[in-house]
Amino acid sequence: MLTTNPFDLPDANGDKLREECGIFGASGSEGAAALVALGLHALQHRGQEAAGITSFDGAEFHTHRAMGHVAGNFDSPAIIGQLRGNVACGHVRYSTTGETALRNVQPLYADLASGGFAIAHNGNISNAMRLRRDLVRRGSIFQSTSDTETIIHLVATSNYRTFVDKFIDALKRVEGAYSLIVMTPEGMIACRDPLGIRPLVMGKLDDAIIFASETVALDVVGATFVRSIDPGELVIVKGSEVSSHRPFAPTEPRPCIFEYVYFSRPDSISEDRSVYTVRKEIGAQLAIESPVDADLVIPVPDSGTPAAIGYAQQSGIPFELGIIRSHYVGRTFIQPNNEVRHLGVKLKHNANRALIKGKRVVLIDDSIVRGTTSLKIVQMMRDAGAAEVHMRIASPPTRHSCFYGVDTPERGKLLAANMNIDEMNSYIQADSLAFVSIDGLYKALGEANRSDTRPSHCDACFTGDYPTMLTDHDDVASVDQFALLAERVS
Amino acid sequence: MLTTNPFDLPDANGDKLREECGIFGASGSEGAAALVALGLHALQHRGQEAAGITSFDGAEFHTHRAMGHVAGNFDSPAIIGQLRGNVACGHVRYSTTGETALRNVQPLYADLASGGFAIAHNGNISNAMRLRRDLVRRGSIFQSTSDTETIIHLVATSNYRTFVDKFIDALKRVEGAYSLIVMTPEGMIACRDPLGIRPLVMGKLDDAIIFASETVALDVVGATFVRSIDPGELVIVKGSEVSSHRPFAPTEPRPCIFEYVYFSRPDSISEDRSVYTVRKEIGAQLAIESPVDADLVIPVPDSGTPAAIGYAQQSGIPFELGIIRSHYVGRTFIQPNNEVRHLGVKLKHNANRALIKGKRVVLIDDSIVRGTTSLKIVQMMRDAGAAEVHMRIASPPTRHSCFYGVDTPERGKLLAANMNIDEMNSYIQADSLAFVSIDGLYKALGEANRSDTRPSHCDACFTGDYPTMLTDHDDVASVDQFALLAERVS
Amino acid sequence: MLTTNPFDLPDANGDKLREECGIFGASGSEGAAALVALGLHALQHRGQEAAGITSFDGAEFHTHRAMGHVAGNFDSPAIIGQLRGNVACGHVRYSTTGETALRNVQPLYADLASGGFAIAHNGNISNAMRLRRDLVRRGSIFQSTSDTETIIHLVATSNYRTFVDKFIDALKRVEGAYSLIVMTPEGMIACRDPLGIRPLVMGKLDDAIIFASETVALDVVGATFVRSIDPGELVIVKGSEVSSHRPFAPTEPRPCIFEYVYFSRPDSISEDRSVYTVRKEIGAQLAIESPVDADLVIPVPDSGTPAAIGYAQQSGIPFELGIIRSHYVGRTFIQPNNEVRHLGVKLKHNANRALIKGKRVVLIDDSIVRGTTSLKIVQMMRDAGAAEVHMRIASPPTRHSCFYGVDTPERGKLLAANMNIDEMNSYIQADSLAFVSIDGLYKALGEANRSDTRPSHCDACFTGDYPTMLTDHDDVASVDQFALLAERVS
Amino acid sequence: MLTTNPFDLPDANGDKLREECGIFGASGSEGAAALVALGLHALQHRGQEAAGITSFDGAEFHTHRAMGHVAGNFDSPAIIGQLRGNVACGHVRYSTTGETALRNVQPLYADLASGGFAIAHNGNISNAMRLRRDLVRRGSIFQSTSDTETIIHLVATSNYRTFVDKFIDALKRVEGAYSLIVMTPEGMIACRDPLGIRPLVMGKLDDAIIFASETVALDVVGATFVRSIDPGELVIVKGSEVSSHRPFAPTEPRPCIFEYVYFSRPDSISEDRSVYTVRKEIGAQLAIESPVDADLVIPVPDSGTPAAIGYAQQSGIPFELGIIRSHYVGRTFIQPNNEVRHLGVKLKHNANRALIKGKRVVLIDDSIVRGTTSLKIVQMMRDAGAAEVHMRIASPPTRHSCFYGVDTPERGKLLAANMNIDEMNSYIQADSLAFVSIDGLYKALGEANRSDTRPSHCDACFTGDYPTMLTDHDDVASVDQFALLAERVS
Repeated sequence: MLTTNPFDLPDANGDKLREECGIFGASGSEGAAALVALGLHALQHRGQEAAGITSFDGAEFHTHRAMGHVAGNFDSPAIIGQLRGNVACGHVRYSTTGETALRNVQPLYADLASGGFAIAHNGNISNAMRLRRDLVRRGSIFQSTSDTETIIHLVATSNYRTFVDKFIDALKRVEGAYSLIVMTPEGMIACRDPLGIRPLVMGKLDDAIIFASETVALDVVGATFVRSIDPGELVIVKGSEVSSHRPFAPTEPRPCIFEYVYFSRPDSISEDRSVYTVRKEIGAQLAIESPVDADLVIPVPDSGTPAAIGYAQQSGIPFELGIIRSHYVGRTFIQPNNEVRHLGVKLKHNANRALIKGKRVVLIDDSIVRGTTSLKIVQMMRDAGAAEVHMRIASPPTRHSCFYGVDTPERGKLLAANMNIDEMNSYIQADSLAFVSIDGLYKALGEANRSDTRPSHCDACFTGDYPTMLTDHDDVASVDQFALLAERVS
Repeated sequence: MLTTNPFDLPDANGDKLREECGIFGASGSEGAAALVALGLHALQHRGQEAAGITSFDGAEFHTHRAMGHVAGNFDSPAIIGQLRGNVACGHVRYSTTGETALRNVQPLYADLASGGFAIAHNGNISNAMRLRRDLVRRGSIFQSTSDTETIIHLVATSNYRTFVDKFIDALKRVEGAYSLIVMTPEGMIACRDPLGIRPLVMGKLDDAIIFASETVALDVVGATFVRSIDPGELVIVKGSEVSSHRPFAPTEPRPCIFEYVYFSRPDSISEDRSVYTVRKEIGAQLAIESPVDADLVIPVPDSGTPAAIGYAQQSGIPFELGIIRSHYVGRTFIQPNNEVRHLGVKLKHNANRALIKGKRVVLIDDSIVRGTTSLKIVQMMRDAGAAEVHMRIASPPTRHSCFYGVDTPERGKLLAANMNIDEMNSYIQADSLAFVSIDGLYKALGEANRSDTRPSHCDACFTGDYPTMLTDHDDVASVDQFALLAERVS
Repeated sequence: MLTTNPFDLPDANGDKLREECGIFGASGSEGAAALVALGLHALQHRGQEAAGITSFDGAEFHTHRAMGHVAGNFDSPAIIGQLRGNVACGHVRYSTTGETALRNVQPLYADLASGGFAIAHNGNISNAMRLRRDLVRRGSIFQSTSDTETIIHLVATSNYRTFVDKFIDALKRVEGAYSLIVMTPEGMIACRDPLGIRPLVMGKLDDAIIFASETVALDVVGATFVRSIDPGELVIVKGSEVSSHRPFAPTEPRPCIFEYVYFSRPDSISEDRSVYTVRKEIGAQLAIESPVDADLVIPVPDSGTPAAIGYAQQSGIPFELGIIRSHYVGRTFIQPNNEVRHLGVKLKHNANRALIKGKRVVLIDDSIVRGTTSLKIVQMMRDAGAAEVHMRIASPPTRHSCFYGVDTPERGKLLAANMNIDEMNSYIQADSLAFVSIDGLYKALGEANRSDTRPSHCDACFTGDYPTMLTDHDDVASVDQFALLAERVS
Repeated sequence: MLTTNPFDLPDANGDKLREECGIFGASGSEGAAALVALGLHALQHRGQEAAGITSFDGAEFHTHRAMGHVAGNFDSPAIIGQLRGNVACGHVRYSTTGETALRNVQPLYADLASGGFAIAHNGNISNAMRLRRDLVRRGSIFQSTSDTETIIHLVATSNYRTFVDKFIDALKRVEGAYSLIVMTPEGMIACRDPLGIRPLVMGKLDDAIIFASETVALDVVGATFVRSIDPGELVIVKGSEVSSHRPFAPTEPRPCIFEYVYFSRPDSISEDRSVYTVRKEIGAQLAIESPVDADLVIPVPDSGTPAAIGYAQQSGIPFELGIIRSHYVGRTFIQPNNEVRHLGVKLKHNANRALIKGKRVVLIDDSIVRGTTSLKIVQMMRDAGAAEVHMRIASPPTRHSCFYGVDTPERGKLLAANMNIDEMNSYIQADSLAFVSIDGLYKALGEANRSDTRPSHCDACFTGDYPTMLTDHDDVASVDQFALLAERVS
């Protein structure tokens, strides 16, 4: 099974934040499921452990879910042929490994009194545990351990009359982050939570309406970008009719700033900004804030590359490929015995020894999570004969967990939650270490600095400034009780 | 995949009644799941298309379900090792083929407010559709298309306080046939519907309590037979404590008579009668009622063999193996092209040509459903040179569908629903055809004849005398509406 | 994987002789491979661990080989569709388990200077090791560890000019038992060793010529039996032309007598005798030679059944099904943990307890190899309450190994090689034990007795009278040297 | 299955030259097979369709071969654990797809009279067909359709006495390109053809001797580079003893120049030159020879990247990531229906639209084979709004097929064999197109220019100057006759 993110550093399982989902929907296109498969393939970097597509053919819903990548699971004519209909949506995700995995793979589906209901969700409901407890007491039976299922039961048990009213009733009871694509026999709905924490864009391909987590998925299917879904907006597509609804009180949006740092593909456009350009800008800010006298600027491939180009252009130090990345690590190679286990790090990255030897190098990486990778990369440079190794990081120190759909280690394992910058520098054994400042990061976005009172983005992983309540996090007992009830399916 | 019943005739998919389930439970035995796997293996003839086992280890429930046979799916130490705990139950079933199959495989499981709940069911709830519609309107979300799931939601939404009261409340709202084994964190419950339509027995193995559909499963695991569960009885096992409950008003039992004809294994004991002996007795009755001047008595293997021995002993005509059955047809051989498709029938049965040639033969079979097999077998005897071919059937004509958990063709396809015996004889092209009489069948059970007013068994498939209401059958619209809602999962 | 012979006793892996092969060929039939697949399915009892088919389409040879049964491996239209051509042959075999298995699966194939050459072999070359050593010294490279490959290299390196002459040259250099079907671009050849130790028959289906190990395979494909291939005969089929060749000096044939005892299906005709009838005759002889005062005659299913019918008819004691065999053991059920391992024997056979209790029973089995099964079956009868248990065996004691293609345990593990009949009776704990005499066995074949000077069959497993030289057996060093050279392929 | 080369362009199956093999051997290391697996993983770019490893444990040889990548097939402890011994060698390759594939996967193995013999080969024997015909006439039987097997039969039938003499005898009869690693019970031999067309280097890891196609494989296993094997040299390793043999008359070496252009990894050192540095140098030469007035230098990822950096540094035009490559195309995504098939190109590469718009871009690629990719990439740039698109190629035009182990299209499909540069420019629809000159290529290697009389490298794909005879190529009939004999195994 494919288990690592090719954009990752070595030791990726532990040393990168992991986006938990990408979603894609198409309404009004013959063979919609094939379009969704292509779109999910373009969003594969947002979730690589499982994928699913649900279609509706006017009478029946059809679903296929699988562990693993989109390619290999959703590209056979047999599979796509079964996913009949002109409306379809899909989902890629990280999932917990092991026995209960498949039933948590989205889109989730339910037969409601109003008819079938499918849902694909990017984000995290931060009061899901408490809502679930209440629903179960009332007689609701959950099929999965996913927070998303909470929304389905809230719709099923809502006292409102129409489906849309039930759905809005449900959304008003959840807190947290959600970009959703849902399907009913009547049409497709795309919506985004009031703060717009997770992204969602709309496009057009001939007469079809497309929804996607990132614009790159529109490019890949040949669709034209129309606009972002607004925070708090519901867009309803019924046949050729598209309508917009805003059931929430207006509030200041807080989209996730880490999309610029790492999650989005560099060729995506986010809120009218080129992600590639923002990353180069961050690199340039870093060169201004933390210059260093060196011979080579070397990206930690591939996520550090745009920032490294920006750093090199700003500083005038040549950009060079000092670390060569193997293209065959998408498929994890398990070192088969103890004799060779310590050799493993070089499977993913290898120093370009002839280039490095005797040189002073600046390494550019996007972020530091646990620090284990940085330590190995610095060591690899020294083994290759580097005279000096300076590490520059294209984001502020990651000090806080995310509760909005990103898999972060518990705080105790975040290097920056436990050490100041000098201590981190000692830990990774570099000659110097610097992070871009939080204001520098906002500068790269074109703002003068971060507004402490009304920041334009969610930057809680850097600042601890969470824009919503965190009910379940504050309600620890629920977690344990919940775990007790789960059936283990092998 | 293994898809045919080795007890079947050729062309088995269409020409045998199919029992829909076997269930087995063990409480108080270390490694209970391994016992359950053995027990289900012994009940494999009751359902060959899917199997499942759920165990409880004092904290968590563990489930494994698979399409196909018990052997190959439930005999690896890895699988059994995951099914931890001293309490376990399991299920074998026929299921509809295709995409949605696995989610209907039992035991079904749900997390209720009172804790985990697993259920294995043999029978059929004849008002399941109507109950489901009501529950969905109220907000319940169904995971499967199984009638059994109705019971779970009735428990989940019951207003009674204790689990046992909720469970009895649910049972009082369902009609039809059910032998159930359920598990909760507090213990195991075995119960049988008030008429006792489907069988269920209790045994003992050291300190463990065992429940099984047939006594042969007790034999195979080395357990001692204790007694049958009474119609309308609940037996509750909590640790070493066993208690009996009878929440229903007493009524005349009506156990299924077809268990003696075909469903049960010949080495099982049903209601104190040896199934093998009853079958020989039916054969003897048939020899008395419908004698024939012939040279050989030949069983249609294997289900006709005990009756053929009875017929031979009663008539004095030698019992001979005139049809040799291949033992490799458990695994269906698909004829791979048109050139050879017409040859296929002999893959399963082949005439013992040297024996048959020039002889007058009496063929003994257990029942006729569609008649296609009888036609082929008679032809096979003639091709092998038989001088005369007389067909004798060890049950009365099967004229009516079963609504209690047995897969019968729609009435229009039952040969005996459309033809009288002479017409059937012409259709199968035998020299003569006779069925045992309904009174002859009851005689073989030791009764004087069938009581028309208070028959001791359910014999609706022969008589049309159904002992319960058939709500869904009378409420056709529900079927269609239900079908509309189902998600197709590939 | 399917690994047991359904005709076997419990503990089959150790307690039955195992025929090593069945072969089938068809020439002149459109889609010949499909016919071969059906024929091999009918011969499945002769070899269940692997199968292969090779076809020739006039230009190219096509081969598919697989571990496991014919059904499941050779019944998909995709597989059969690739095996193009009007000429095809196939093979079922027992093989040693493990890594090197697939390359030994037949038909074997080689590109010779004269063109492609495929060969399917039933039997064993008893000087294969010595021939191989000589060929390797000369530069031949072996692909397999099969004795059959020796024939291919002898053909490839023969100095004769035509293919047929090369082939006869090769056969004259091998000793042992062989029934062969070979294919070249010019046609199909079927042949049998000069003693005719292994069987081979010819049939006709429309214009096609069929060859098969047993007549049952002709029945199943709808072909007419023409005649047996004579010992020492080559039958060559080129298009519609069939010619017979007898290159060997005439000698007294010695076909294997164990085909009657166990190997052949009861519905086969062997040398003009019905195998079923011979088995009944053996049972009758046994009743005459070793009568017993008893209540029931019970076959050990299924291989003991015809002899039991014969015994019952001769003795007048009723034939009854006292042991019920599960039809689901074709697929071996592995007992998953120690708690239940001792329960395993009943998975395959279960006593019909209600019938046995208090009765004096005669058990009829076809042979005793190691004796472990007999011991368990006797014990099972006693546990079920039998008053007396008498064991009668429908063959003489098996005292010697077979070197002609039958997998026998080494002599030290053959019960009858180490004990006299009284000792064997004590070992299996029966009340009495008797075997049919060697003369009784020949009587059942219609002869007056066994001719000590010119016996009509190979009965070496009973008498030690081997009809050929056993070069490799006498040349032990070759075995070890050979083993050293083999590559292990995982 | 993983089927594309991640270093490839879109439409890679047709538009890149494909190196046919990488080889790796280790002698004297505990658990040698694990080292070989790591080494092959590092050489994966040299052959991605199949892999194999053979080990020797002092008594037996052990082999595992598989279609697909090293990761997933050679990283399980179970597989590696079976490949016992301190000596092992392995092979990665491209293979023809389909049924006969596995038997051609190397290392090949044979049991010779002198003992086991395993061989891994990078290159191509250009008289293999003629040798094979002669050997088959003599009685040799081939297992594969691989040219490498010819060497085995030449060894097996050599009249020399010792293994090494037989092996040298065989090599003297073959023509073409070969780097070989062979194993016998006595030791490991590495050798290179007299012209040294394919690479092979030697390294040391503690006491173990390592052989590999490229130095990057030494880096990855932690070994130290010792030296290249010389053209025409045999290095024999017996235990700790290493000896060198030079049985061929000395000649001018002609190593493949395309290793610098594309085949080798940029972090490899080839003949004391850094491949990365040579590629940058080629880019710089290209900037000198064919300058262009532009805004951005854009690599066609990933193989064009080093040359693009060289071009950018020489020209002063900024290097930018104008094409973003998906990291999920290692696993080919099959477009499942016609509606979306035309969208497919963007799955692999997507234009960085925000960067490109309105700009004059220079695209740098390593070579043009069929030209289909260049056409698509140019179009992609125009669709993204590029003002001008100039294509610069870091090798001379590829005009001739390779017969030394590289899979090239037939000449008629090589764009440069059919068009001059202007015509190619029109075909790909660029604003301008230029290739580096052949002298420019040699300049990048540090030579003054190409010596027409004694060129230092094999550059036949550019010049048509083949350094060996091409017997089979001139002997076309052999190809057809050979094809006729092959068995198709499904």
